[in-house]
Amino acid sequence: MIKYPLHLLKLVDTFRKLPGVGTKTAERFAFELSQWPNDRLQEMAKIIQSTSTELKHCHECGCLSEALSCPFCLSASDARYLCIVAMPRDVFAIEATREYQGLYHVLGALLSPLDGIGPERLNIDKLKQRLTNSSIEEVIIALDSTLEGDATALYLKQEFTHLNVRVTRLAFGLPMGSTIDYVDGGTLARALSARARF
Amino acid sequence: MIKYPLHLLKLVDTFRKLPGVGTKTAERFAFELSQWPNDRLQEMAKIIQSTSTELKHCHECGCLSEALSCPFCLSASDARYLCIVAMPRDVFAIEATREYQGLYHVLGALLSPLDGIGPERLNIDKLKQRLTNSSIEEVIIALDSTLEGDATALYLKQEFTHLNVRVTRLAFGLPMGSTIDYVDGGTLARALSARARF
Repeated sequence: MIKYPLHLLKLVDTFRKLPGVGTKTAERFAFELSQWPNDRLQEMAKIIQSTSTELKHCHECGCLSEALSCPFCLSASDARYLCIVAMPRDVFAIEATREYQGLYHVLGALLSPLDGIGPERLNIDKLKQRLTNSSIEEVIIALDSTLEGDATALYLKQEFTHLNVRVTRLAFGLPMGSTIDYVDGGTLARALSARARF
Repeated sequence: MIKYPLHLLKLVDTFRKLPGVGTKTAERFAFELSQWPNDRLQEMAKIIQSTSTELKHCHECGCLSEALSCPFCLSASDARYLCIVAMPRDVFAIEATREYQGLYHVLGALLSPLDGIGPERLNIDKLKQRLTNSSIEEVIIALDSTLEGDATALYLKQEFTHLNVRVTRLAFGLPMGSTIDYVDGGTLARALSARARF
């Protein structure tokens, strides 16, 4: 057993909680911090410390925001569309395309029975409330193309059947720049069945 | 421009200071933290905050330690050998081999004129003091095989000429598990010239 100082082990443990960070990378971060001047350490600690007070969730859509109303809700120019995403980062990804001017709704999670995440963990009550009290004509389901994303999309579709809205989901097909021989069979099959007039 | 909340940008900026972390990874870390419960954030902040008080540098060898004397200095069973390394992490890497029972000395940096790092930035005064007042017979230079490592090794060799110690450097050659056709020419040339009776 290598005799790491206790505090170094604590740093390694805390960095290992970050996504995609294993022991080796966490050790690298920890050794880096051990070289930092104190003011830099204090600055990082202060920013992390104030995260839950500084970062709020929009009361309307659930996205991350500095205030209780987010700029996406305030600036949406076309309130006929509501795009449902899993996490706040998905909102920023869709905004970056500049292709969408409608509203968003962040679920905060995807259904995953194996991880104990059921419908009650999703931000759905607020979603239903928004759909009944508004002029939304189309709900766009923009969830991951994974087992959890598919399950959540199906669940949402059932929940919306009695509502007077069009429900759509992001298209599946070839990613831009891909070659036919490298694309997986599942994607190719979906691209074939969803072929469009050219 | 994507409308990230200000605090999210601050988190991204602070994580980008970690080694090997670019904007994409820093954003991933920042979004992850925005989901964490407050006690977890406070815990991480506290650990980072106390780093400069909790992690000390050994007064003797300069390695990271919980106390002012490190376990490597206290437990070295063969004080005839002194291994010179650049950074504390190198000490832990050599300890993990279980092949060395001697003392260590951490320089804290490598000579790099382009980055403005000259001999005055290296922990050398203490090194000379240790070498003159002790029974050290051999100094093992265990520095990176890079431009900076080579420059520092040469500088140290010159500094030690008037001292009555044997100066050695880690061997260069094929890394374990490598194949001749994939090893670079420089390594192969060093391995050839340093060939040993088999």
